[in-house]
Amino acid sequence: MNKKINVGIIGFGTVGSSTALILHEKKDLFKRYTGIEFEIKKICDIDWKTKRTWVPPKNVRTSDYQEVVNDSDIDIVVELVGKFQPAYDIISQSLKNKKAVVTANKFLLSKKLLELLTVANENNTYLGFEASVAGAIPIIKTIRESFAANRITAIIGILNGTTNYILSSMTEKHQTFSLALDSAKKMGYAESNPYLDISGKDSAQKLAIISTYAFHCPISDDDFLIEGIDTVAPEDIEFALELGYRIKLLAIAKRVDDTVSLRVHPALIPQSHMLSDVNGVYNAVYLEGDLFNKILLYGEGAGGKPASSAVVSDIIEISKKLLIQEHFPEKFVIEPQTMIQQLDHLETRYYLRFTALDRPGVLAKIADVLGRNNISIASVIQKRENPDRAVPIVMLTHRAIERNIRKAVSAINKLSCIKQKTQVIRVED
Amino acid sequence: MNKKINVGIIGFGTVGSSTALILHEKKDLFKRYTGIEFEIKKICDIDWKTKRTWVPPKNVRTSDYQEVVNDSDIDIVVELVGKFQPAYDIISQSLKNKKAVVTANKFLLSKKLLELLTVANENNTYLGFEASVAGAIPIIKTIRESFAANRITAIIGILNGTTNYILSSMTEKHQTFSLALDSAKKMGYAESNPYLDISGKDSAQKLAIISTYAFHCPISDDDFLIEGIDTVAPEDIEFALELGYRIKLLAIAKRVDDTVSLRVHPALIPQSHMLSDVNGVYNAVYLEGDLFNKILLYGEGAGGKPASSAVVSDIIEISKKLLIQEHFPEKFVIEPQTMIQQLDHLETRYYLRFTALDRPGVLAKIADVLGRNNISIASVIQKRENPDRAVPIVMLTHRAIERNIRKAVSAINKLSCIKQKTQVIRVED
Repeated sequence: MNKKINVGIIGFGTVGSSTALILHEKKDLFKRYTGIEFEIKKICDIDWKTKRTWVPPKNVRTSDYQEVVNDSDIDIVVELVGKFQPAYDIISQSLKNKKAVVTANKFLLSKKLLELLTVANENNTYLGFEASVAGAIPIIKTIRESFAANRITAIIGILNGTTNYILSSMTEKHQTFSLALDSAKKMGYAESNPYLDISGKDSAQKLAIISTYAFHCPISDDDFLIEGIDTVAPEDIEFALELGYRIKLLAIAKRVDDTVSLRVHPALIPQSHMLSDVNGVYNAVYLEGDLFNKILLYGEGAGGKPASSAVVSDIIEISKKLLIQEHFPEKFVIEPQTMIQQLDHLETRYYLRFTALDRPGVLAKIADVLGRNNISIASVIQKRENPDRAVPIVMLTHRAIERNIRKAVSAINKLSCIKQKTQVIRVED
Repeated sequence: MNKKINVGIIGFGTVGSSTALILHEKKDLFKRYTGIEFEIKKICDIDWKTKRTWVPPKNVRTSDYQEVVNDSDIDIVVELVGKFQPAYDIISQSLKNKKAVVTANKFLLSKKLLELLTVANENNTYLGFEASVAGAIPIIKTIRESFAANRITAIIGILNGTTNYILSSMTEKHQTFSLALDSAKKMGYAESNPYLDISGKDSAQKLAIISTYAFHCPISDDDFLIEGIDTVAPEDIEFALELGYRIKLLAIAKRVDDTVSLRVHPALIPQSHMLSDVNGVYNAVYLEGDLFNKILLYGEGAGGKPASSAVVSDIIEISKKLLIQEHFPEKFVIEPQTMIQQLDHLETRYYLRFTALDRPGVLAKIADVLGRNNISIASVIQKRENPDRAVPIVMLTHRAIERNIRKAVSAINKLSCIKQKTQVIRVED
């Protein structure tokens, strides 16, 4: 048996060069531990001018990805270009050429995971994508293998380090959103254009991948609610703390009857929850299942080394399978009857912050509208600060229906005693 | 290809009956997702009188384990008897009969993991043991596969739910050890004879298994320091909190040069450490590696369902491999040059609580002995409560050598101003 695996890498940025360096530096170690000799056959990038820690030999370098995708000697193609095209062509052509593919491309997979898994199946080969979600945290493998005996019932992730850093700073240092964002930029934890992170879009892409895989149904990040963190005010964080909660940007996927409730939004989470102590730039995924009950996987979600740790582990795992002549890639089972729950039907608890004139009867008016919409109040904080100015009234509701909350809040916002748009943040108990 | 796997279960207690029930109830689901039909061919137990949730058909039941071990139809033997014998014979005979084995036996594997892995290798078959450590938390698989590209440099575990519950109660409710132990017993979190838990022995067995596997060298729980939690006093917990730490029973395995430092003992851990918020009966394993950096795996470490989740996942994984005719079990590589560090050479920080007469010059005397032993002091708390009675003096040292600490403390204990044996707790920064 030939125990040699030829690897082609497309995209030689942070993760690509870290991956190549690991395969290069740990070559003897991997051979000793797995019996497999990894050879980097080709590395493709359009830019060979930028300086890197490790420069591959000239005969390995190319700027034409077709040279990798169509090289009959290459067993595994590692796609680290990112974005949609040409990554989509690289992956699908490679799979059709019967090559296994390892990728970290969250953007592409958040739209095309199921399709590409099917192409891999049809061509009797493998698609590894652990690195596309939460860096080195082994979420995909844990769902697939360690929890194979379980029915996964809930996935709640803190999947974006930038927003978690910002919310942590706002909580610990009592900063405003924009001050915390500035400090995140200074620390290198936020990009100069932080839109993808702040808006929740990055978390949503990762949630689409994890939940497609865990629930065996096609889920794209276009299919569910995505709310960012820029509307979270310092007073929301303070009130949350007073009520025993913290505010986190959560990516939530939960089975509710025959549907999956999916959403990304800031949420109040009890201080006793496993996710509540995940601070700073860390990522974490909390899972619930019928047998293991609750598990938290917690670590660094970004960076070249953690991501390439996941890429190389996928390469090793897939290589072991490829080296067995008569290997049978497992068919990924699709459950077409699983539907995404409509947001209107969501049932959860809500944090409501009204800004109202501090006059007798205001609370009664608000409570009346809530009652008429079948929303019952669990607790109220009303601060009497200044009788001449609008003051915050904060409520936690019991479980209520999203549609009713929207109706009620819209009606309350029209009351003459209400001086600002009401803040609504969902609670994850 | 025959896609049927025959399973024999030996030991029909909590985990055994939960495992059988899962294989029985989820049979169709597993067939749909993996293509494999699992058949429970035989279940062995010496007691068939005790009532169980699920009673297997009569033709499946036996009281003679030889009927399982020597049944040529059985592909996988699940050993859930526990203890040393006959578990050792069951596992080694089964492996020699070319059957794969799945076990949850921490006691046996803490002495014999490497030997049994070697027997499995020699017979071209598999030994699954995820369930032997920390219930459903996927620590073995994560080290083996998800972190295959990494050099694991540290493993720090909270591996015993009973002691973690007791220390959490002492911290949160300001209870004494014996009061917290009583409440653990009442809650069903401690056995009537809690020796194995309290003494650190149970944690040590699990640490031996994880570190043998992670560091590829033979490690038994007889090889390293094991200290229990019964000497931790409420004032140690209070002083620790005041200094920014919590006290946890930690199972520690760290690479130090060419050696591995191994030990189980109560330790001060900074409140900012990932492990510090792991409270109650939960287990958690914190890992450090050269690429993934830091990861925490956190969940329920005990109970029939979590353990059987791990057992059944091992069964499924191994079955997939068995069903490939030409399968090659990976040879477990042994690194014979890796040595266990001698405790004398341990270098860490220490918490010292002296009980001394509150007289001028006492601190100077203590500091003098420490200084002569190359121990430098990082901080001191000296409470002036009652000039007529002995009072606590608490110190945190900078990094110091265990041998020096022992020498110094032994000398200090002989000073006339010292009224009680000095409390020494290691710090894990």
